[in-house]
Amino acid sequence: MSQSAQQSVGVVETQRMRFEAPLRLSSGAELAGYELVYETYGELNADRSNAVLVCHALNASHHVAGVRADDPKDVGWWDNMVGPGKPLDTDRFFVIGVNNLGSCFGSTGPMSINPATGRRYGPDFPVVTVEDWVHAQARLADGLGIERFAAVMGGSLGGMQAMAWSCLYPQRVAHCLVIASTPKLSAQNIAFNEVARRAIITDPEFHGGRFYDHGVVPRRGLQVARMIGHITYLSDDAMAERFGRALKHADYGFSFDVEFEIESYLRYQGEKFSDYFDANTYLLITRALDYFDPALAHGGDLAAALAPASAEFFVASFSTDWRFSPQRSREIVAALLQNGRDVSYAEVEAPHGHDAFLLTDPQYHSLVRAYYDRIARQLDLGGRR
Amino acid sequence: MSQSAQQSVGVVETQRMRFEAPLRLSSGAELAGYELVYETYGELNADRSNAVLVCHALNASHHVAGVRADDPKDVGWWDNMVGPGKPLDTDRFFVIGVNNLGSCFGSTGPMSINPATGRRYGPDFPVVTVEDWVHAQARLADGLGIERFAAVMGGSLGGMQAMAWSCLYPQRVAHCLVIASTPKLSAQNIAFNEVARRAIITDPEFHGGRFYDHGVVPRRGLQVARMIGHITYLSDDAMAERFGRALKHADYGFSFDVEFEIESYLRYQGEKFSDYFDANTYLLITRALDYFDPALAHGGDLAAALAPASAEFFVASFSTDWRFSPQRSREIVAALLQNGRDVSYAEVEAPHGHDAFLLTDPQYHSLVRAYYDRIARQLDLGGRR
Repeated sequence: MSQSAQQSVGVVETQRMRFEAPLRLSSGAELAGYELVYETYGELNADRSNAVLVCHALNASHHVAGVRADDPKDVGWWDNMVGPGKPLDTDRFFVIGVNNLGSCFGSTGPMSINPATGRRYGPDFPVVTVEDWVHAQARLADGLGIERFAAVMGGSLGGMQAMAWSCLYPQRVAHCLVIASTPKLSAQNIAFNEVARRAIITDPEFHGGRFYDHGVVPRRGLQVARMIGHITYLSDDAMAERFGRALKHADYGFSFDVEFEIESYLRYQGEKFSDYFDANTYLLITRALDYFDPALAHGGDLAAALAPASAEFFVASFSTDWRFSPQRSREIVAALLQNGRDVSYAEVEAPHGHDAFLLTDPQYHSLVRAYYDRIARQLDLGGRR
Repeated sequence: MSQSAQQSVGVVETQRMRFEAPLRLSSGAELAGYELVYETYGELNADRSNAVLVCHALNASHHVAGVRADDPKDVGWWDNMVGPGKPLDTDRFFVIGVNNLGSCFGSTGPMSINPATGRRYGPDFPVVTVEDWVHAQARLADGLGIERFAAVMGGSLGGMQAMAWSCLYPQRVAHCLVIASTPKLSAQNIAFNEVARRAIITDPEFHGGRFYDHGVVPRRGLQVARMIGHITYLSDDAMAERFGRALKHADYGFSFDVEFEIESYLRYQGEKFSDYFDANTYLLITRALDYFDPALAHGGDLAAALAPASAEFFVASFSTDWRFSPQRSREIVAALLQNGRDVSYAEVEAPHGHDAFLLTDPQYHSLVRAYYDRIARQLDLGGRR
């Protein structure tokens, strides 16, 4: 196992692929052609066997690793995981990050021009599901000439996509890495999403999703949505450890201005988010989260839902994750074992809550590294080092 | 122990007491006279020894038990706890419910006319603390001729008031019942409050707290605030049990309208709340929650903070309460024991989360009943039955 110097993948270019054939969606609607933006890291080997697809979560993008040419400070969201010598080692694997349909980072979404009307889709962009994303990504894989992925990997909502890949395209997924995810949202998960959506939709500057036409952004709604999200990403303990009841000033100010560090942090996160994230995208992606429930069509039987999968699985959860707790990952593991699948399961002791899947935790990273070493041995990729 | 037929206290009248002397507040500000509305149930005995003060939480009021003459459907918020034959038995005890300063149910608050300006206080109403409430309530006790309470009792924020009573007026509190409470909010608790406040303050119809002058109400902000609150009042399990992923319609509608029962429930709760609750009050009361931290003035030493208390204590928590978890109650108990206080502590197995303190749980109610039986024996009140 190589623990050699880890490097960044360096400057990366955004790539773009257009698909002209209409995409039939879970809702029954049809998307008449679409584009996906993506990035790649490492090199596809001669027999095209070393490709890994990384699926993103709610507010992330195709920019998984490295920096953008036009903004050297914009480091990819999983740069600690993906790169030369990193757990997902781009010296051995050809890694693809793709921005999902409906997102706001370059792939076709609510901000795109609707060819049918000549104006932005806005609220007319169809509601998409995790399964829709997977079908859209499969065409990207076709376009790249990748018949079968060495692995499909994702955390949180990204883990749902990896699971869906393993069921919808079992022959195209050798390994499936599902991290800090869940087979379906709980009522509480849906509740938080709904409050965030209400904050956006009831913002007068949302204009029914047509805020682009009014030259405004429903910033207040986005800020509240992001603040709520952030609370669910951090563990109670992590918040206590990082912020506790620390005050911004020496004493109480007896006002509703910022008093506590945690307030300052959340406001900052909310404001930053409202600068770059699209409100319609937030609605779409939280809805995709709500809807994901592969067992629904099988009378609630998750094992039956996952029966088509033939991949080997790596499932990981984090002890203090209360958004998608270890119990939710164990449900996935139990269903896979019931189907006789090969499953590696790690429950990582980490204080950071759901956010842990994005952080550099030595135990977590060494487990992922070891799993990719195993994949590399299986695929005889070792020679690339 | 009487388990005889439980009855309602019946129709109750709102009473009102005015205090002309200015009230000095924790902030240093002074409130020039104020009114408190209150209700009483049962009869004060000849030696005035059977009075129990019930303190309310965030959105409740002085209307603890019975029904209002003008609205027979408006049942008090703790009617299952307070009444003839109920755990806090009004055949033996004289119970007082009081609406806190700054609240919106009749006591002086942001909706009241500021005598200095002739217009509603709105944002000029001073920020009040739990300790301020207790001092204001003490004047009510004076006015009612109650030198010493048989008990001061409250759940959640009400429990904070009970704790503060025991420290600020130790000679006036024989027993202190602190239920589902905490010695201080965690960073996560503050975070949820802050998101709720941002939702209200950034609602364009808040108008800096002067929405009364504009004939509007920041309903959207209040709705989001209430929805967030509700999520924290229910346990994940209770939500799963009660709503799960149940759909409003036969199948997914692929929209942002109500799809899941939990969405419908939260929207309904939010709308109902925005019909009757004052936005400025919501800010004030959440801030009082944030600020409560008796140990702060004692270098974080809770035992030192509670040292003045001479009451006997009943502390109760609920196993699935994640807003104020049992661990928070245990901190209170540990500090009291360190001071050599007499403490009864109950950790009630209940599935309902924080809301459990308001619900009819047989174990919980029988513990409270037994504790009041003990108080009645101590005070020789048994003869009233």
